[in-house]
Amino acid sequence: MIALGVDIGGTSIKGAAIKDDGTLLDYFSLPMDKYASPEMSFFEMCEAINNFLKDKDYKDEIVGIGLGVPGILDKEKGIIKYSPNMPLWDGFNIVDFVQKRTHLPVKILNDASSAALGEARFGTGKNFHNIIMITLGTGVGGGIIIEDELFDGNEGAGAQIGHSIVELNGRQCSCGRKGCLEAYASATALNKETNEQAKKHPESLLNKYPGIGCKEVFDAARKGDPTSIKVVDEYIKYLSEGILNFCNIFRPEVILLSGGVANEGQYLVDRVTEYIKVRDYGYKHSPEVLIKIGALGYDAGKYGAASLFFKK
Amino acid sequence: MIALGVDIGGTSIKGAAIKDDGTLLDYFSLPMDKYASPEMSFFEMCEAINNFLKDKDYKDEIVGIGLGVPGILDKEKGIIKYSPNMPLWDGFNIVDFVQKRTHLPVKILNDASSAALGEARFGTGKNFHNIIMITLGTGVGGGIIIEDELFDGNEGAGAQIGHSIVELNGRQCSCGRKGCLEAYASATALNKETNEQAKKHPESLLNKYPGIGCKEVFDAARKGDPTSIKVVDEYIKYLSEGILNFCNIFRPEVILLSGGVANEGQYLVDRVTEYIKVRDYGYKHSPEVLIKIGALGYDAGKYGAASLFFKK
Repeated sequence: MIALGVDIGGTSIKGAAIKDDGTLLDYFSLPMDKYASPEMSFFEMCEAINNFLKDKDYKDEIVGIGLGVPGILDKEKGIIKYSPNMPLWDGFNIVDFVQKRTHLPVKILNDASSAALGEARFGTGKNFHNIIMITLGTGVGGGIIIEDELFDGNEGAGAQIGHSIVELNGRQCSCGRKGCLEAYASATALNKETNEQAKKHPESLLNKYPGIGCKEVFDAARKGDPTSIKVVDEYIKYLSEGILNFCNIFRPEVILLSGGVANEGQYLVDRVTEYIKVRDYGYKHSPEVLIKIGALGYDAGKYGAASLFFKK
Repeated sequence: MIALGVDIGGTSIKGAAIKDDGTLLDYFSLPMDKYASPEMSFFEMCEAINNFLKDKDYKDEIVGIGLGVPGILDKEKGIIKYSPNMPLWDGFNIVDFVQKRTHLPVKILNDASSAALGEARFGTGKNFHNIIMITLGTGVGGGIIIEDELFDGNEGAGAQIGHSIVELNGRQCSCGRKGCLEAYASATALNKETNEQAKKHPESLLNKYPGIGCKEVFDAARKGDPTSIKVVDEYIKYLSEGILNFCNIFRPEVILLSGGVANEGQYLVDRVTEYIKVRDYGYKHSPEVLIKIGALGYDAGKYGAASLFFKK
């Protein structure tokens, strides 16, 4: 059985043909203009899908297209209800639109939930039953797996774990509240803080890099740059406090990290693990929550979207 | 079918015989000394249970005893693993102990989870499938119902929703972290804050009451006392921000409030509802989360504990 798994993002759409045994066959991608109309963007996506499939010998084996879509969705009706970064999409029936133009069954799922489902079924999560996945990218996305089932709340509007505050009256978040985890732990937030601190501290090693971002601040911190150490320590603290909240609320077996900042790999895992292991509720008496990096990286969402068509 | 449901607290143990149709037949209770050994406390509890049942005509219909126990439990082995307010209990096999002395099957569940289960099956939650219950008492307890099933995390150590921070580096919490919701939204926290503010403001109406606590500060606030209004406004803000976190994480159909502060009833519901309805994630496009008071009050835990023996 083969399905297409498509991850729809603010700057690009990336997809793959994936077999139900976890084999990823071929990739395709196209750029996305988030200010274009949804009709325009998804028309181009359908064209790309049709072109991609045209010469594939497994074309007739494709059982459907799974779409990972940012925002709050009505999965039953196939409608994008609310996509904060793509305001023109609100109310658009993406399932009808894509089914008509590809002549294939289409299912949708929130993009972060999709990534969690992918990791749970084909990645780092496959030997665990209760998983929280946190994507540290443009925002902080979340996916919740409870007893091997995706949980995304009433009408799929839950699992917005990045939009839980860790600091009342703290940094302004895009959702309207102040102090959300997203405003501290996203790659965007780390990037912004790094650039601000680099400007404030002209002597910092950060200013020797051709570009300054998440990767550079971790690198400079490991090299002993005091400004970078401060930025990274603060980042680890906020991220870990958010993770501790999820440990206490869910007590999952594992918390998976993905997204841009997760490229820091084992260093990030070690720092967070060190922070949380002495601070979680009843820590000496509670089962340890493992921190791991998602193995599928940016492919997790494609796997999760495709898996909407696979049997468990 | 009849089971005993027992709610074990820090100052008293209260139980009832409950039929599986929701009829509460009879109550019993006994005082608890949390500094006594678990052998002593639970020996007395077993004596009380045996005395309670002695002359009941339904004695032989009792199918088991459900115990709602504060702390982290090993439900399979029947052991209290960690009970922060009753340190002598750690490691005690309460199920074996009580089974031996009552000659009845015994099951255990965390007390807050037990209350949530009771409300879900017999109270305000019975027409909902996804429920978060928050008990605003000595601490802030939590119970999570997902698709009609209790969720309490790996080894039952989850659902500690009071131990999620809302203010990094905030008030010291009993769990060791700083800024947990419990440190702001528990009856204990409100009581403490009320008394501190009453001392600071000798002119406050609060000082006219014979005793000063949660009930009085809400009462004085409704009468226009500026000090009390400030305390209540702050309380509503912290509680509501915590509730918003759970709205965004779980997007349940309903959040139930219980415990001492929930005695404020509709006034509390209205204040929280007003606060959250314009602040939850994607609020115009997300299903509303209802705020309600648990109908079973202090009996919720007994219902939940008894229901461990009832078929769904």
